[in-house]
Amino acid sequence: MKAVTYRGAREVAVEDVPEPRLEEPGDALVRVTCCGICGSDLHIYHGQIPGMIPGFVCGHEFTGVVEETGPGVRGFRPGDRVVGTFHVACGTCRACRRGAYNQCVRYGVFGYGIAMGSLAGSQAEYVRVPHADVNLRRIPDELDDEQALFCGDVLTTAYGALRNAGLQPGETVAVIGCGPVGLMAVQSAFVLGAARVFAIDLLRDRAEMAERLGAVPIVAGESHPVSRVNQLTGGEGADVVIEAVGGPRTVALAFELVRGGGRIVALGVTTAESFAFPLGTGLTRDISFRIGLANIHRDIDATLALVAAGRLDPTAIVSHRLPLSEAPLGYRLFDEREAMKVLLLPGQ
Amino acid sequence: MKAVTYRGAREVAVEDVPEPRLEEPGDALVRVTCCGICGSDLHIYHGQIPGMIPGFVCGHEFTGVVEETGPGVRGFRPGDRVVGTFHVACGTCRACRRGAYNQCVRYGVFGYGIAMGSLAGSQAEYVRVPHADVNLRRIPDELDDEQALFCGDVLTTAYGALRNAGLQPGETVAVIGCGPVGLMAVQSAFVLGAARVFAIDLLRDRAEMAERLGAVPIVAGESHPVSRVNQLTGGEGADVVIEAVGGPRTVALAFELVRGGGRIVALGVTTAESFAFPLGTGLTRDISFRIGLANIHRDIDATLALVAAGRLDPTAIVSHRLPLSEAPLGYRLFDEREAMKVLLLPGQ
Amino acid sequence: MKAVTYRGAREVAVEDVPEPRLEEPGDALVRVTCCGICGSDLHIYHGQIPGMIPGFVCGHEFTGVVEETGPGVRGFRPGDRVVGTFHVACGTCRACRRGAYNQCVRYGVFGYGIAMGSLAGSQAEYVRVPHADVNLRRIPDELDDEQALFCGDVLTTAYGALRNAGLQPGETVAVIGCGPVGLMAVQSAFVLGAARVFAIDLLRDRAEMAERLGAVPIVAGESHPVSRVNQLTGGEGADVVIEAVGGPRTVALAFELVRGGGRIVALGVTTAESFAFPLGTGLTRDISFRIGLANIHRDIDATLALVAAGRLDPTAIVSHRLPLSEAPLGYRLFDEREAMKVLLLPGQ
Amino acid sequence: MKAVTYRGAREVAVEDVPEPRLEEPGDALVRVTCCGICGSDLHIYHGQIPGMIPGFVCGHEFTGVVEETGPGVRGFRPGDRVVGTFHVACGTCRACRRGAYNQCVRYGVFGYGIAMGSLAGSQAEYVRVPHADVNLRRIPDELDDEQALFCGDVLTTAYGALRNAGLQPGETVAVIGCGPVGLMAVQSAFVLGAARVFAIDLLRDRAEMAERLGAVPIVAGESHPVSRVNQLTGGEGADVVIEAVGGPRTVALAFELVRGGGRIVALGVTTAESFAFPLGTGLTRDISFRIGLANIHRDIDATLALVAAGRLDPTAIVSHRLPLSEAPLGYRLFDEREAMKVLLLPGQ
Repeated sequence: MKAVTYRGAREVAVEDVPEPRLEEPGDALVRVTCCGICGSDLHIYHGQIPGMIPGFVCGHEFTGVVEETGPGVRGFRPGDRVVGTFHVACGTCRACRRGAYNQCVRYGVFGYGIAMGSLAGSQAEYVRVPHADVNLRRIPDELDDEQALFCGDVLTTAYGALRNAGLQPGETVAVIGCGPVGLMAVQSAFVLGAARVFAIDLLRDRAEMAERLGAVPIVAGESHPVSRVNQLTGGEGADVVIEAVGGPRTVALAFELVRGGGRIVALGVTTAESFAFPLGTGLTRDISFRIGLANIHRDIDATLALVAAGRLDPTAIVSHRLPLSEAPLGYRLFDEREAMKVLLLPGQ
Repeated sequence: MKAVTYRGAREVAVEDVPEPRLEEPGDALVRVTCCGICGSDLHIYHGQIPGMIPGFVCGHEFTGVVEETGPGVRGFRPGDRVVGTFHVACGTCRACRRGAYNQCVRYGVFGYGIAMGSLAGSQAEYVRVPHADVNLRRIPDELDDEQALFCGDVLTTAYGALRNAGLQPGETVAVIGCGPVGLMAVQSAFVLGAARVFAIDLLRDRAEMAERLGAVPIVAGESHPVSRVNQLTGGEGADVVIEAVGGPRTVALAFELVRGGGRIVALGVTTAESFAFPLGTGLTRDISFRIGLANIHRDIDATLALVAAGRLDPTAIVSHRLPLSEAPLGYRLFDEREAMKVLLLPGQ
Repeated sequence: MKAVTYRGAREVAVEDVPEPRLEEPGDALVRVTCCGICGSDLHIYHGQIPGMIPGFVCGHEFTGVVEETGPGVRGFRPGDRVVGTFHVACGTCRACRRGAYNQCVRYGVFGYGIAMGSLAGSQAEYVRVPHADVNLRRIPDELDDEQALFCGDVLTTAYGALRNAGLQPGETVAVIGCGPVGLMAVQSAFVLGAARVFAIDLLRDRAEMAERLGAVPIVAGESHPVSRVNQLTGGEGADVVIEAVGGPRTVALAFELVRGGGRIVALGVTTAESFAFPLGTGLTRDISFRIGLANIHRDIDATLALVAAGRLDPTAIVSHRLPLSEAPLGYRLFDEREAMKVLLLPGQ
Repeated sequence: MKAVTYRGAREVAVEDVPEPRLEEPGDALVRVTCCGICGSDLHIYHGQIPGMIPGFVCGHEFTGVVEETGPGVRGFRPGDRVVGTFHVACGTCRACRRGAYNQCVRYGVFGYGIAMGSLAGSQAEYVRVPHADVNLRRIPDELDDEQALFCGDVLTTAYGALRNAGLQPGETVAVIGCGPVGLMAVQSAFVLGAARVFAIDLLRDRAEMAERLGAVPIVAGESHPVSRVNQLTGGEGADVVIEAVGGPRTVALAFELVRGGGRIVALGVTTAESFAFPLGTGLTRDISFRIGLANIHRDIDATLALVAAGRLDPTAIVSHRLPLSEAPLGYRLFDEREAMKVLLLPGQ
């Protein structure tokens, strides 16, 4: 079959690779109809993921149609239209039982190399899904594949961050970074009851995209985010800050934006080892800080229901739809920030 | 001053009564700018509230301007534009401290007679507000008085019911009854994350008003609510049911609409002593049921913020704005269901 | 193998029946080491469960050792010491995914007849466990089988009721009925932070057993429970009431014991169709009421950890340990209230 | 009256100062019966609190008897036996209304100088309490003053930290530091449902004091805390870590002790500006971190009820009871770690 493979830094190829097969009783084989290029795929593209050996199939966002199921699969049968979770969980270990699917003892990420579960990726014509009853969801009839795809990764990641922040209805949210995750955070904040969302980005067009989703845009170069948020909140600061860029600088900004007693959740992936957590002001201001990988399984049923009902529309951010064969172009455009979100369509 | 007084069953009058004065250090005197006729005022109008002696000033919804404050009032000063909570609480008793302001030992309701705290009502030119720091809120600049008025009673009542139901984002809500409270419940459900809301009423035009707010309308005479909700939920039933009519029949309907593991909150005021709670199906289906007076103080800051941000718009249901002098007409229209919501304007 | 079978009203027998075998990939076969007679087994004993056809194997509480597993079982292997959940769930349906294992589409109860999943019971030498990864738990080394057994049913049922009641640390709890579930509720209330527990029973020795667990005993015939609880709470009533008897009378008592804003959870199984829910007092007092089957899977990891750490000791209530062959005697003693809790030991 | 005053680094005196008087309508004057020397008083003693000008009265823990109340005080009258909260709040500002009393706009701490509200301290014969309805609690009859005193500060601080950590029943807790706050955290963890508590200290006798309260003691110099906690948790780590020492080193240790998906709450006061928050491991392990001042008002009703019921016993840690006149000795003993907890008794 055709698949996108990693070849080395800034090089992906579309190659013929062997089709995956069922390996365990709980496996399903899925024919991929739509797959995305995710911000975290760029870490691979930049050659920063050691476990990605050349030839490894890329990609972890996907929808498709079930082609075949193992004897242990109860919830799906061939022909079912499905969306996959970008990371896999077993569903029954101690971590999964407490709902921490991102801490599963059998944790893995599709298309992320031998250190992340050795799961061939989904930028391909077929993908093997372990523990299919746990790691697939049927796509509601109201949804097309593109809409559902976002529920398996970027939308639910952002949505989960706002749940982790304990967002209360009527609160204000500041989102740092208006890339795909940040824009999904803006949408999620509203659906979870935020009164107002402040969307901060260095790029005017990104901030304006957030504005079209209902946020108050703050272009970092044009006005000072801290002053602006203070002005908009009567000097109090935001109840919740979502950091969706990555790195010490934007994390430090989050501490300046948040009100006393507020909560910061960091989503941005970074290669920085650490940041200087401000102990003194943290102490007097009673600040909560959380950083962690997405926990898709916990929230995907909710996001699917919300997209199906038209309350969330993640496809607003899709900028490019390309056939699978043009994956190298897609990676390049996304890496150069000429694309907001690229979808690959294996069937075309 | 002019005030609306109770005269007997189906009779209210606009009369001259003495202006209220400060009585306690924590009191404030408020000049009323806008007041509403509430569904529960009809119980008075129907002569069902024994504590309403003839001559008692009616009304518990109001906005206004602070005219004078006692020496113990810290948070307000003359000239502040404010909305009152329909019921009063002391803010420091054991019940208040745990957030149960509707169980305050000094509980009272404006304009509800001598058994409810003997607090002269707000359908008047002036109203005395005890514990003003607790029972008033400043109106945000973004809000006009009409919008704020709803936060002191009917909107926050509905909103609180959905919080009491533990509504989770992505869930479905069935609202029984599309009067003012029911329509506010439809709006609140969406702002709290409901994926879909089913709005049930006997009257087509009321159900259609709910539809304009985003709900799926179900006209009880035209289709069977239980069949329709089951059809819309794949046979499962609604996650949450809000009963906003009152009485054993609609409460029984709620049990038929709710899914296994779901939650029912009853808001409708009724004179029925009891209903037959279905023990057997409750047991196998794990049903939670709650009924109780509104707890405005717990939620009013959130509803004010949400209305100020444009996320809730309660004024959509206002059908009549009358000068205070036409209160008798307002009561009659509302009682005959020719008005959806009547506001009285003392200043006109 | 030997097994306890239902023979008709007030008649159980110990008979030779065929050993169960693996049927599905997710099954496990467990050699039973200890099994209990539960209060709900008495409904069978009284001939009230239509699905219990003569010859059906009884019992739903058990511990044992895994003998054999199907190819889909990941978490267990032969030799593992395990406790079973009294009801089974699939772990992946929509209800299970939201944590409502008691509403699973494949819900069943061991030894409860053809209307409850047709699962042969555990009062036998061997039992087949479907979806073993979901419906078994490994017994921590610190625990003997007897202690673990309670986690699969009666202890976790009581514990879950207190969680359903939203018990807050420092609150007071009234428990109506000091049978096995009521006594487990007393223990659970303390471990979940109750300041005080009032234990009500008609029988002095049962109330005294609760007293030894730390509760304030109230013998219903000797003092009036409502007066006594009011006296002990400064007239306020209990924050939480657990009804562990069943039937309209004790449910009505619960409404008299609970404080305004309090919560009632009914656990007692009853054949009564309904009770008269007091609408008027419910409305002014803001009462929550919940009734439902236990949801063991949600809480069993916590109860196992708490028993393993010595914070809960369910074995305090064991009155009889009998070989499996004496099951008929055990049923009779329990039915006649001469036993508090009977365990059957197949290995003896 | 006699009062303990700050004189300069490592110097406190017992002097005659003017008695406080009522200043605001909401004030109460309290005759102090018992007051404590708190760990944070040592920051004053070490000359690290700039706002402590020489002559300022020290102390923020106290119980007493109401002597006089202003006209705005509703809940107390002369003769009431009361405990004070160490920090004051107004009860009605926006922060207080959302329960964040530690972020009150009128925040202050008794005896902490002119930068903390200029409130004369409680190590004196009399203390003036602003907003008395908010900042005092009546002492239940079951409690003596010593027991109640802890509810106003150190016990409730520790208890609140475990609530901030979202401790779930059945979880494990590691407490770093077995001083007064750490020991209160051990007790609180159990009452809030912890299965096991690991108590870490450099000093053997402090760890053993924790052991007497039910914890597993870990003497840092004798065994490696990380290895030991991993061993005790099957390699998983603690669900919750309470840092009760202060400073970058023990905060860093907390990150090594906590399990993936776990929560750290830091209580220890430090002069260090920051610590290096580990971004990479935080990200993959999904860690929550919170640091903040105590929020006494939120939890004091619960802790008073739990101490009154005998479920918490803070007096176990009292090592010295001295007359007020011996305050200088008390400070010295506590500073030199020869005392675990010193109480001063003005009446003696």
